[in-house]
Amino acid sequence: MKNLPLSKVYQLLEPGPVVLLTTARRGRANIMTMSWHMMVEFEPPLVACIVSDANYSFAALRATRECVIVLPAVELAATVAGIGNCSGRDVDKFEKFRLTPAPAARVAPPLIVEGFANLECRVVDTRLVNEYNLFVLEVLKAWTDPAQKNPRTIHHRGDGRFVVDGRTITLKSRMR
Amino acid sequence: MKNLPLSKVYQLLEPGPVVLLTTARRGRANIMTMSWHMMVEFEPPLVACIVSDANYSFAALRATRECVIVLPAVELAATVAGIGNCSGRDVDKFEKFRLTPAPAARVAPPLIVEGFANLECRVVDTRLVNEYNLFVLEVLKAWTDPAQKNPRTIHHRGDGRFVVDGRTITLKSRMR
Repeated sequence: MKNLPLSKVYQLLEPGPVVLLTTARRGRANIMTMSWHMMVEFEPPLVACIVSDANYSFAALRATRECVIVLPAVELAATVAGIGNCSGRDVDKFEKFRLTPAPAARVAPPLIVEGFANLECRVVDTRLVNEYNLFVLEVLKAWTDPAQKNPRTIHHRGDGRFVVDGRTITLKSRMR
Repeated sequence: MKNLPLSKVYQLLEPGPVVLLTTARRGRANIMTMSWHMMVEFEPPLVACIVSDANYSFAALRATRECVIVLPAVELAATVAGIGNCSGRDVDKFEKFRLTPAPAARVAPPLIVEGFANLECRVVDTRLVNEYNLFVLEVLKAWTDPAQKNPRTIHHRGDGRFVVDGRTITLKSRMR
């Protein structure tokens, strides 16, 4: 995997893709599916996300303050839905979904080799966790897989429906 | 425009579309383009968003605590980019972009008739405004335009590139 400059991280998350989130606690890694996230700052990249306290990952994220955001392309769509349909309480999701963990550089939770990008994160603000389950993360290190060219992401529309990236248009824009 | 049950609002925002945000202050309405937003709660629908203090809309939103989130389909893409390229300090964007304001039911800022959905919002949490420009909004009332069937939204990828909704896939999912 190849290093991605932190200044470009927003280009991965701003379009609103469904992502995976890995955590690790007491030597055990877990994965959840997440689509409630947004960029907060360009650089250093800050990301806000909601991790429900109904998710097994919640306690691990709150206790360890570390996670990895993994970007899956559409080829992993069934895996992404499957990961959202079971709990790390009951199952080792890396094994069940035959995903390949790889060590991260700056945090304990693993990267997922099958993702086209991996973002190593630490929790930097928990003020809204109790009320909204809202964590603010800082991206410490970002990786992309050069072998996955032009990955198409998926976006959750509710009730198991996902919209896949279509064509790209370019407009004269001062938006960064 | 037709009433949308508040329980379905997340289906509009969760896929991560670029949206417009209207505010009103001292009798003057303004519009900005926004793509840093996420769902926080299903019902009542809560939404977090970043409105930079470099935007003219920031002061209006902070002072009045009201806004409307407007969802534009791809046909409005050039308008959406144009709105992001100028400031309400200098120009009346409704006039410049020939958009049609309509009165909202619960808040002072106007709806935009050309949007395929309009969400009337009030600010419910400002604890992270000073540090991150992060507002938490509650959606009080939601409208859709029944004449716009299957609208395709756009998602910002940085530097004026936007990805347009492609095909929809359905997977067995317990994700709401």
